[in-house]
Amino acid sequence: MNNFLNSTSSVSEFVGASEIGDTIGMCIPSVDPLLLGQLSVQKQYSVIGVLSARTGAGPQIMAMDDAVKATNTEVLDIELPRDTKGGAGHGSLILIGGNDPSDVRQAIQVALDGLSKRFGDVYNSPAGHLELQFTASASGACHLAFGAPIGKAYGLICGAPSGIGVVMGDTAVKTASVDVLSFASPAHGTSFSNEGILHISGDSGAVRQAVIAGREVGLKLLAELGAEPVNDFPSYIK
Amino acid sequence: MNNFLNSTSSVSEFVGASEIGDTIGMCIPSVDPLLLGQLSVQKQYSVIGVLSARTGAGPQIMAMDDAVKATNTEVLDIELPRDTKGGAGHGSLILIGGNDPSDVRQAIQVALDGLSKRFGDVYNSPAGHLELQFTASASGACHLAFGAPIGKAYGLICGAPSGIGVVMGDTAVKTASVDVLSFASPAHGTSFSNEGILHISGDSGAVRQAVIAGREVGLKLLAELGAEPVNDFPSYIK
Amino acid sequence: MNNFLNSTSSVSEFVGASEIGDTIGMCIPSVDPLLLGQLSVQKQYSVIGVLSARTGAGPQIMAMDDAVKATNTEVLDIELPRDTKGGAGHGSLILIGGNDPSDVRQAIQVALDGLSKRFGDVYNSPAGHLELQFTASASGACHLAFGAPIGKAYGLICGAPSGIGVVMGDTAVKTASVDVLSFASPAHGTSFSNEGILHISGDSGAVRQAVIAGREVGLKLLAELGAEPVNDFPSYIK
Repeated sequence: MNNFLNSTSSVSEFVGASEIGDTIGMCIPSVDPLLLGQLSVQKQYSVIGVLSARTGAGPQIMAMDDAVKATNTEVLDIELPRDTKGGAGHGSLILIGGNDPSDVRQAIQVALDGLSKRFGDVYNSPAGHLELQFTASASGACHLAFGAPIGKAYGLICGAPSGIGVVMGDTAVKTASVDVLSFASPAHGTSFSNEGILHISGDSGAVRQAVIAGREVGLKLLAELGAEPVNDFPSYIK
Repeated sequence: MNNFLNSTSSVSEFVGASEIGDTIGMCIPSVDPLLLGQLSVQKQYSVIGVLSARTGAGPQIMAMDDAVKATNTEVLDIELPRDTKGGAGHGSLILIGGNDPSDVRQAIQVALDGLSKRFGDVYNSPAGHLELQFTASASGACHLAFGAPIGKAYGLICGAPSGIGVVMGDTAVKTASVDVLSFASPAHGTSFSNEGILHISGDSGAVRQAVIAGREVGLKLLAELGAEPVNDFPSYIK
Repeated sequence: MNNFLNSTSSVSEFVGASEIGDTIGMCIPSVDPLLLGQLSVQKQYSVIGVLSARTGAGPQIMAMDDAVKATNTEVLDIELPRDTKGGAGHGSLILIGGNDPSDVRQAIQVALDGLSKRFGDVYNSPAGHLELQFTASASGACHLAFGAPIGKAYGLICGAPSGIGVVMGDTAVKTASVDVLSFASPAHGTSFSNEGILHISGDSGAVRQAVIAGREVGLKLLAELGAEPVNDFPSYIK
């Protein structure tokens, strides 16, 4: 996979793009008030950062979670299109705000740089996919998107088709003592994606253990649909 | 098409899988209360069966309707992801409950075994698809998913792109005297699928006649978009 | 691309079909009241026209906007499935009504004939698409679908993945003095499509100028995701 991050663009708003998930990052240094009034943002910043992808919501949200921790920016809006170019999951639209364009551009760049890590535990097969995410300390993106308590460990356990996520979630919560934030399914908490997604919080070691247990059973179940699931980047949850 | 039903899995929850619609069946013998509290189930069973598919909602729902009639189980939840792997329709997530794991596993197995029959009147072309379903006596799955009166004949008449379903539905209700339960369309009663779906009930002969009339006009209309629609399994509605 | 408009069909409701967007046009001369009662139409016409497509909502809506202006018909319902056969956008279902079948058939035919023009500013790449639309005088279809004031100029500026539409929209409103009707995004005003869509109204010259400015920046941004976007038909907005 190629990364187009070093492309030179004649569009001043362009920050970078990546083949990973068809993800593009942009920054509007002074957003027009007529447009801002129509966006679903809770706070009014004049500098708006945009991270937008065809494939992947969890990876981009986690990468942005890492990015806002590292920069002077704030997550304003996270929306989940039903996309993945014919796959079972979501794309993503993430808007962030800041007071300085250089801060916002930096945050977008950090998020783009983090995509390969955050796709490390995304496993695809022709029949579906799995996604696992973990952070020892959730920040604004995980909070806004998934209701994760800020500063606590957070884990995401996702399987598609969605029934696989049900069994993965059951296995996860039986493995370690964690707080269940929610379980998202095609009709509840997703944009009609074919995913079952458990969101958990709690002690860092327990969350990690639960995520790993969910992954193990998910890989076996998805393989029953005909082919071994594979990840495009090295797994980061160990 | 191959059927993976005889696969031996190291996951105890696994019941079976089928290449038909990428459908997987599982059974959780004792669901964790933390997960159960987050599922959208109306009754609290500790044994949960899961039927989950990338492609097809009607066929899996009808197969499960047949299965709960034949076993000591109950349908708890039916959710319709917007899926079909780039096609115009839905996938499915069906949860059932029971008091005995062997009952639930049997129901999931019966549903998997019934898929080839229930895909018999699914017709695909590059431009869209048609689906017809009929039962002489609706049970819990048809009731929960489509509002079908239990014990009465039920019919489903679906066309995609959705406008074809409108004309199929009009033809069907003009053909025989049936009760119209509802008409689902992209913005009403579907998960934004590109389908027009008439749900009918009533006298068994009339419902069957209406379904067959809808099929006839649907096949002709979908063929106008460039290729004859074909079914992968023998038609069962005669 | 071929156009199947001259096909002879044995289905009396059939008006025409086009390979463009997999679009089919039909007319029900006397709709069954049982079906009509289930359709989401505001007025009760007995003659119903249907335009239905797998790919494209804007083009079909604009083509129908032109068609109702030219015929004695009225737009009754516009629904947007999440479709495009694996792409990032919508398909469409449009219902129109009239008092005379020949009027309704004519309107459907005019809309089918207008598709190639209205796809002229749809630009596709493997990573996404852009859509631009313009009319000097909006009619019933633009009004119902997008809230466009009837008789005034209307413009649509759309980018996918959706973040591209955000920057296109910002550029557009900075270019010319226009009224912003709304901004649609994956979670607001779309059917979970991966599009950012600005709807504008106002002075004809200003709306056109804003649309062209949005197109210019959109083409450059989408190209950053790896390939130049291309249109299948000649651009009509100049």
